[in-house]
Amino acid sequence: MKIWVIHGPNLNLLGVREKTIYGEKDLDFINREIQKEAASLGMDVEIFQFNHEGEIIDTLHRAVGKIDGIIINPGAYTHYSYAIRDAIAGIGIPTIEVHISNIYRREDFRKQSVTAPVCVGQISGFSYHSYLLALHAAKWHFAEKEV
Amino acid sequence: MKIWVIHGPNLNLLGVREKTIYGEKDLDFINREIQKEAASLGMDVEIFQFNHEGEIIDTLHRAVGKIDGIIINPGAYTHYSYAIRDAIAGIGIPTIEVHISNIYRREDFRKQSVTAPVCVGQISGFSYHSYLLALHAAKWHFAEKEV
Amino acid sequence: MKIWVIHGPNLNLLGVREKTIYGEKDLDFINREIQKEAASLGMDVEIFQFNHEGEIIDTLHRAVGKIDGIIINPGAYTHYSYAIRDAIAGIGIPTIEVHISNIYRREDFRKQSVTAPVCVGQISGFSYHSYLLALHAAKWHFAEKEV
Amino acid sequence: MKIWVIHGPNLNLLGVREKTIYGEKDLDFINREIQKEAASLGMDVEIFQFNHEGEIIDTLHRAVGKIDGIIINPGAYTHYSYAIRDAIAGIGIPTIEVHISNIYRREDFRKQSVTAPVCVGQISGFSYHSYLLALHAAKWHFAEKEV
Amino acid sequence: MKIWVIHGPNLNLLGVREKTIYGEKDLDFINREIQKEAASLGMDVEIFQFNHEGEIIDTLHRAVGKIDGIIINPGAYTHYSYAIRDAIAGIGIPTIEVHISNIYRREDFRKQSVTAPVCVGQISGFSYHSYLLALHAAKWHFAEKEV
Amino acid sequence: MKIWVIHGPNLNLLGVREKTIYGEKDLDFINREIQKEAASLGMDVEIFQFNHEGEIIDTLHRAVGKIDGIIINPGAYTHYSYAIRDAIAGIGIPTIEVHISNIYRREDFRKQSVTAPVCVGQISGFSYHSYLLALHAAKWHFAEKEV
Amino acid sequence: MKIWVIHGPNLNLLGVREKTIYGEKDLDFINREIQKEAASLGMDVEIFQFNHEGEIIDTLHRAVGKIDGIIINPGAYTHYSYAIRDAIAGIGIPTIEVHISNIYRREDFRKQSVTAPVCVGQISGFSYHSYLLALHAAKWHFAEKEV
Amino acid sequence: MKIWVIHGPNLNLLGVREKTIYGEKDLDFINREIQKEAASLGMDVEIFQFNHEGEIIDTLHRAVGKIDGIIINPGAYTHYSYAIRDAIAGIGIPTIEVHISNIYRREDFRKQSVTAPVCVGQISGFSYHSYLLALHAAKWHFAEKEV
Amino acid sequence: MKIWVIHGPNLNLLGVREKTIYGEKDLDFINREIQKEAASLGMDVEIFQFNHEGEIIDTLHRAVGKIDGIIINPGAYTHYSYAIRDAIAGIGIPTIEVHISNIYRREDFRKQSVTAPVCVGQISGFSYHSYLLALHAAKWHFAEKEV
Amino acid sequence: MKIWVIHGPNLNLLGVREKTIYGEKDLDFINREIQKEAASLGMDVEIFQFNHEGEIIDTLHRAVGKIDGIIINPGAYTHYSYAIRDAIAGIGIPTIEVHISNIYRREDFRKQSVTAPVCVGQISGFSYHSYLLALHAAKWHFAEKEV
Amino acid sequence: MKIWVIHGPNLNLLGVREKTIYGEKDLDFINREIQKEAASLGMDVEIFQFNHEGEIIDTLHRAVGKIDGIIINPGAYTHYSYAIRDAIAGIGIPTIEVHISNIYRREDFRKQSVTAPVCVGQISGFSYHSYLLALHAAKWHFAEKEV
Amino acid sequence: MKIWVIHGPNLNLLGVREKTIYGEKDLDFINREIQKEAASLGMDVEIFQFNHEGEIIDTLHRAVGKIDGIIINPGAYTHYSYAIRDAIAGIGIPTIEVHISNIYRREDFRKQSVTAPVCVGQISGFSYHSYLLALHAAKWHFAEKEV
Repeated sequence: MKIWVIHGPNLNLLGVREKTIYGEKDLDFINREIQKEAASLGMDVEIFQFNHEGEIIDTLHRAVGKIDGIIINPGAYTHYSYAIRDAIAGIGIPTIEVHISNIYRREDFRKQSVTAPVCVGQISGFSYHSYLLALHAAKWHFAEKEV
Repeated sequence: MKIWVIHGPNLNLLGVREKTIYGEKDLDFINREIQKEAASLGMDVEIFQFNHEGEIIDTLHRAVGKIDGIIINPGAYTHYSYAIRDAIAGIGIPTIEVHISNIYRREDFRKQSVTAPVCVGQISGFSYHSYLLALHAAKWHFAEKEV
Repeated sequence: MKIWVIHGPNLNLLGVREKTIYGEKDLDFINREIQKEAASLGMDVEIFQFNHEGEIIDTLHRAVGKIDGIIINPGAYTHYSYAIRDAIAGIGIPTIEVHISNIYRREDFRKQSVTAPVCVGQISGFSYHSYLLALHAAKWHFAEKEV
Repeated sequence: MKIWVIHGPNLNLLGVREKTIYGEKDLDFINREIQKEAASLGMDVEIFQFNHEGEIIDTLHRAVGKIDGIIINPGAYTHYSYAIRDAIAGIGIPTIEVHISNIYRREDFRKQSVTAPVCVGQISGFSYHSYLLALHAAKWHFAEKEV
Repeated sequence: MKIWVIHGPNLNLLGVREKTIYGEKDLDFINREIQKEAASLGMDVEIFQFNHEGEIIDTLHRAVGKIDGIIINPGAYTHYSYAIRDAIAGIGIPTIEVHISNIYRREDFRKQSVTAPVCVGQISGFSYHSYLLALHAAKWHFAEKEV
Repeated sequence: MKIWVIHGPNLNLLGVREKTIYGEKDLDFINREIQKEAASLGMDVEIFQFNHEGEIIDTLHRAVGKIDGIIINPGAYTHYSYAIRDAIAGIGIPTIEVHISNIYRREDFRKQSVTAPVCVGQISGFSYHSYLLALHAAKWHFAEKEV
Repeated sequence: MKIWVIHGPNLNLLGVREKTIYGEKDLDFINREIQKEAASLGMDVEIFQFNHEGEIIDTLHRAVGKIDGIIINPGAYTHYSYAIRDAIAGIGIPTIEVHISNIYRREDFRKQSVTAPVCVGQISGFSYHSYLLALHAAKWHFAEKEV
Repeated sequence: MKIWVIHGPNLNLLGVREKTIYGEKDLDFINREIQKEAASLGMDVEIFQFNHEGEIIDTLHRAVGKIDGIIINPGAYTHYSYAIRDAIAGIGIPTIEVHISNIYRREDFRKQSVTAPVCVGQISGFSYHSYLLALHAAKWHFAEKEV
Repeated sequence: MKIWVIHGPNLNLLGVREKTIYGEKDLDFINREIQKEAASLGMDVEIFQFNHEGEIIDTLHRAVGKIDGIIINPGAYTHYSYAIRDAIAGIGIPTIEVHISNIYRREDFRKQSVTAPVCVGQISGFSYHSYLLALHAAKWHFAEKEV
Repeated sequence: MKIWVIHGPNLNLLGVREKTIYGEKDLDFINREIQKEAASLGMDVEIFQFNHEGEIIDTLHRAVGKIDGIIINPGAYTHYSYAIRDAIAGIGIPTIEVHISNIYRREDFRKQSVTAPVCVGQISGFSYHSYLLALHAAKWHFAEKEV
Repeated sequence: MKIWVIHGPNLNLLGVREKTIYGEKDLDFINREIQKEAASLGMDVEIFQFNHEGEIIDTLHRAVGKIDGIIINPGAYTHYSYAIRDAIAGIGIPTIEVHISNIYRREDFRKQSVTAPVCVGQISGFSYHSYLLALHAAKWHFAEKEV
Repeated sequence: MKIWVIHGPNLNLLGVREKTIYGEKDLDFINREIQKEAASLGMDVEIFQFNHEGEIIDTLHRAVGKIDGIIINPGAYTHYSYAIRDAIAGIGIPTIEVHISNIYRREDFRKQSVTAPVCVGQISGFSYHSYLLALHAAKWHFAEKEV
C-alpha cells in the first residue's frame, strides 16, 4: 500500500511555533516517526509539506493512478479552501484528514472543516500520533472497504 | 493501562440500523474486535452501552480513581448533551471521542460536537476501526503526555 | 394491525397542567378514547408514558419485530432529542408524530421538530383527537404505502 | 357541517408532478375520495383549486357566514404568504392546514409555515389521506371546541 | 393634485376582522373620511382595494402619467412583495406607505417593510387617521420637494 | 391639548449637517413651523432639544401629569436606547415617533426602532412636515381613542 | 424546437423604469430581437409578459406537452416565489432563468434566487442579450442533454 | 414552609470537579449549610441530587400537593432541557433557579437558560451562598406574593 | 462593610410605571427596606438613582477607595451599556447585579446582560427583595472570597 | 476582439472528476470547442488553466492593455477569493463569470459568488456551452455597452 | 493646525484599570506625551475626557468652525453610540479614531466600531503611541487631502 | 531596527486601480516614501509585494531570526487567510497591519480582519501615510514593549 502524507501551511514551523498548542516536536522528528510506523506496517510513504494552496492541489492531482491513499493535514486551509476540497473529491483517492491539536478546543473558526466532508474520516488532537493513527486507519480501513 | 469504552444511545442497533450509513457489523462483533486489539496492546478494557444520558453520566462518575482513560461514542448526545460534557470535564480522566461514520458527511446538526472540546481528541469515519484507533491513541498518547 | 402509542414527558400532567393550553382532559380519559377508537378500527393498541428520554429509546428498540406502527407524542423532546430521532430512524417502523396543541402557535422553540423528519407525518393541534386521527392515519396510510 | 376544501398552487399537477414526492394519485381521484369520506361522515364539502394567491384570499373572504370550517393545502404559499395568513385570521372560521408530503423531510424552506399559527392545527405527510384525516378532525374537533 | 389610494389585501375585512387590532371602522367609513378630508384639501382622490398582488402592480402601472401621488397600504404584501416594490420604484410617482396599526407592536415579521425603501415615507399606527395624515403629507410635501 | 415636542441628539445641526439627507431647513425654522401649525390647531406646544440620553429621560419623567401627548424624534437613540423606550412606556403618556428622513432608505442599523413598539405610531420621511403631521395625528387620534 | 419566453412582473416598464439599471430598450424592442434571433436559429418562440404570479403559474402548466423549453425572467418573483419554483419543477420542461441586470451587483435580496435551483441554468447581466444567449443555450444544450 | 432543593447533574462532583470554577466545598458541606440556614429560618427542607433528566422530572411531578416551593440548580440541563422547563411550568409550584458560578462569565452556551422563564427568579454566582439566598428569597417572596 | 446601591434609569418611576411588571412599591419604600435590612446586618449603605449613563459611570469611579461593594440595578442599560461594563471592570470593586422582575420572562432584548459578565453574580425576579438578597450575598460572599 | 479564457482550480480534472456533476467532456475537448466557436465569431482567444489563486491574479494583471475581455470560471475560488475579486475590479477589463454546473443546485456554499459582483454578468449550468455562450455575450454586449 | 483630542468613558481610569490590557501609564502621562509630540509638530492641541455620551456630542458640535481635526478614542461608545457617529458625520471635521489596545484581540463586541465608518481612519493597539501616531496622521494626511 | 514591509495582492495595481478608493499614487512612489521615512528614523527597511498567499507565508517564515518587525498590508487576504494569520502567530515577530483605505467605509466583508488578532495593532485609512505611521509605531512601540 502506497500513501502520500501532505503537511499543509506553517507545519514546517512545528517545534518553533506556539509550543503550548502544537508541542515540542519538529517536523523532521514527526516525519521520521511516520516513516518508522509505516515501515512496521509494510506501507510505502512519501511526505510533502506545502505553504501554497495551489501546490497542495497540484500534488493531489499528480497522485492519480500512483497511490492508494492520502493523509493530509491541511492546516489553516482546512477552514476555507474549497479548492482543496474539490481536488480531494475530484481525484477519488481515499483521504484521511489529521490535526495535531484538538481543533474543537481552539478558536471558533477552527471548528469548521470544509475538507472533512470529502474525506473518509478525521483524526484530531493526538499530537504527532494523529499521523500514526491515520496510517493504521488507512491500512485497516482501506483494505476492508470501498470508499 | 485500564480503559472503559462507552457506547452511547442506539449503538445497540448496529447491524440493524441504517446499514448504508453505519455498516453491517453488529455491536457484538465490534466489542470482540475491541477486546482482541486491546489484548494485543496489553490493555485492559471494559465495555458499556447506554441509551440513557443519565447512565452515561453515572458511569463516568464511577470511573474516578479506577481507570486510566475513556473511549466514548456519545452517539446523538454528542450534539446536545452539555451534561455529559460537564461529566467528562469534571472527572478529569483523559477521554477520546469516536464516531463510526464521518460526522461531517451527514446532516448539519451532526457537525457540532459539544463533547469534543473537553476530550483529548476525536476520531470519526473509520467504521468500527475508529474504536481500535482510539485504543492505539490511548496507549501512545496517554503514556507520553499529561492531558 | 398492532400499534404502540408513546406519550412523552409531562403528559401525565394532562388535566393538571396549564389547562388553557392543553385542555381539561386527563391522560386516563385520553387513553380510554384511544382504546375505544382503536377497537372500532380493529386495531390492537398498547400505550406507554415516559418522562425519561432513555426509556423512550429503550421502548422504541423493543418494538422491533413486534408491531406495525408507532404513534408518538415526544413532548418537549420533540425539540432537541436527536437520540430519539436516531432511535425512530434506526428501528425502521413507520411512526407518526402527534401533538395535542398547535405547536406553531406557541413559543419559538416549539416550532422546530427534530423528530418529524424521520416520521411518516405529523398531526398537531386537535387536542386528544390528534391521537385518534393518527390511528386512522396508521390504518389507511400504512396499509396503502411502503414507508 | 359545511366545509370548503381549498387546494393551493400546482396541486392540479398531482399525478403529473414529481411522483416520487407526491405520489401517483391525481387531483380528481383525491377529490372523489374527499367527497366519499365527507358523505360517510354526513358532511357537505365544496372543493376549489387555485394557483393565484389572490383567488385564495377572495375565496376565504367569501366563506364568511356560509360555512363551518375550512381545510386548506396552501402549497408553496404556506411558506411566504402572510396575505393568506391574514385572510385566515381575519375571517374567523376554523381552518385546518394539510400537506400531502411530510414537509419536514424536504428542503429547509418547506419547514416554515407562516399560515399554521392562525390555523387550528396541521396534518402533513399522509398523501391524500391528509385531507381525509382533516375531515375527521373537523367533525370531531369543531363540534367539541370553540376555536 | 390627483391622488390614488390603494388598499391592499384583506383591508375589505376591516370592521369585521380582528377588531382589537384594527378597530371597529369598516372600509366604507374610512373611504368616506378619506374623500371628505381630500375634498377639504382640494385634492382629487380615487380609491381601490385589491387582494391580488398582480392587480396592485397593474394599477400602479396604469397610474403613469395620470396622477401626482399614491397612498398605499400594502397590507401583508408590505413584508414580502418585492414585485410591488419594483412597481413603485419603476413608475417614479411619489408614494406614501400607510398602516392602520403600529407595525412595530405586532409579530416580528411585520417589522420589516420591503416597500418602504422606495416610498417617500411611512405613516403607521393612527387607525384610519393614517390615511388622512398621508393626504396632508402629500399636499405639503409633494408641493415643496422633488422626490 | 398640551403637547411636548422633543428633538433628540444632533438635530440642532439641522441645516448644517448632511443637507442631502436632512434638507436645508434649520431647527429654528422647523420650530416656528411647528408653533404655527399648533396655533392653527388650537394646541399648546413646548419644544426641547437634547443631545444627552439622560436629559430626554428626565424630561419624559417631568411630563407626567402635565401634558396630553409627546412628539419625539429620538435621532440615533431610536436604534439602541432601551432606556428611552422604558421611559416612554413608564410614563404612560401617548407618544408619537417622527423622523425627518425615511429611515428605511438609509443604513441598515436605521431600520430598527427600539422605541416605536411603545409609541402610538411612527411618521417618517416627510422632512419637517413629519412634525406637523404628528400634530394632526395627536389632535385627531388622541381625541378619539384611549391609547 | 418550440420555446416560450416568459417576462415576469414590471418588465413591461422596461425603457420607462430606472434606466440606469435596466437600460433604454423597451420590451417591444427586446421581443423583436428575440424573434429575430430565434428565426435565425430556426426556433419557434412565443412571448408572454405577466405581472400576476398566478398567471405565470397557469402559463407554465399550460406548456405541458406543447413545447420543448422555457426561458423565464421571473423579475422580483425570483427572490420569493416558491410557487413558481414548484410549477417549474412540476411540469418537467427544461427552463432557463435570465436576468437583464447582474443580480449580484444590486440589493442583497436580489442575490437569492429561489427558482434557479429547479432550472437548467441561469444567465444574468447582459441586458437584452441575456434572452438571446438563452436561445442559443436552449438550442445547444437541450439538444445534447437530457435535463 | 416546606421546600425541596434539587441539585442537577454532576453537582455530586463538587469539591472534586474544576475547583477554580466551582470552589472547594463538596456537596455534603453545602447540604449541611442549606439545612442550617433553613433551620434558622424555620423552614423544612428536603434535598435531592440527580444526574438523570427524567428523575428530575419525576421528582418535580411528585412535589405536587406536598410542598410550598422548589429551589433547583439544573446544572447543564439549564441550557437545553425543555422537558424540565415543561415540568416546572406544569406543576405550578413556585421555583427558584440557582447557580454556583456566574453563568455569564463562562462559555457562551451557559448564558442561555431555558428553565429561567418559568421560574420566579434566578440567583447565580455566589458559590454555595446562592442556595442560602434562595432560601431567604423563598421565605420573603413566596409569603408576600402569589406567583 | 460599606456598600453603595445604584438604581439605574426609570427606577424612580417604580410604583408609577407598569405595575403589572414591577409591582406597587415605590422607590422610597424600597430604599427604606434596604436601609432596614442593612442596619440589621450591620452594613452601611448609601443609595443613588440616576437616569444618565454618564452619572452612573462617574459614581462608580468615585467609589474607588471608599467602599467594599456595589449593588447595581442598571435598568435598561443592562442590555447595551458597554461603558458601564467597563467602569465596573475598571474600578475593581465587587459588584452584584439585581433586577426587580425576572428578565427571562420578558422581551428578548432583556435576556442579554452586558454588565453581568463583570459582576460577581446576578439576582433577578424577586421584586424589591432582590436588593435585600444582594445585601446578604455581599455580607456572606465578600467576606469569604476574594473576588 | 481579443479575449482570454481562464479556467480555475481543478478544471484540468474535467472528464476525470465527478462526471455526474461536470459531465464527460475533458478540458481539451472544451478548449477546442471554445476555439472553434471563437473562430466562427471572428474572435481571438487565448486559454489558461491555473490551480494557484496567485497565478490567476498575476494573469489578470498581465492582461491590462492587451485584451478586450475576460471569460473566467474561478472554480472553487468563486466562493471565497476576495483577492481575485479585487484583481478583476482593479484591472478594469470587462469580465464574464461562467460555471459548467448550475451552482444553485449544489451545496449551499456554492450559491455565494464573491467574484460575480465585479463581473459584467454570470452564466451557469450549461456544461461547456457556458463558455460558448460567454463568447457570444462578449461579442454582442461588449460592442454595445461601456462596462 | 488646531486639533482636539477627546478621551471617552473610563479613560480617566488608565493606570488604575486592568493594567494587563491597558498598560501602566495614567492619563496625565499620556496627555503630556500628546502635548510634547504636538509641540514638536507645531500643532495646537486641546484635550478633553468625558464619561457622558452627551458631553462628547456637545463637544463635537462646539468644534464647528474652531478646529482643523479631531482625534477621538470613544472607549466603549465605539461599539454602540450611533449618536456619536451622527455627530462626527454631522460636523464635517476630519476625525481619527484611536484605541490604546488592539480591539481585535479582545471580546467579540469590541470588534465592531460604529464610529469608524464616518472617520478618516483608525489606529489601534499601540498603547499611548496610538494618540501620537494620530497626530502625525493628522499633520500629513489632512494637509494632503480633502476628506 | 530592521523591518520588512510586505504588500499583499493587487497592491502593484496602485495608481492604476480604482483611484477614487485607493488614490493616485503608484507603488513605486509609496515605496520611495517608505524608504525616505525609514531613513529619517534610522530604520533599515526591505520591501516585498506578492499576489500569492503562499509567497507571503514563505516570506514570513524566512523572516525568523533576521528582523525586528513586520509591516504588512495583506490586501484582500486580510479577510480570509487563516494561513497567513497562523504564519504571523507562528513566527513570533511583532507585526503591524496597515490599510491604505478605511476598511470600515467599504463593503461589509472588508470589516472583518482575520489577521489583526495576531498583530500588535492596525492602522487603516490614511492612504500611503498608513505605512509611514507604521514605521513610527514600530520605532516607538517595539522599543518600549515586549510584544
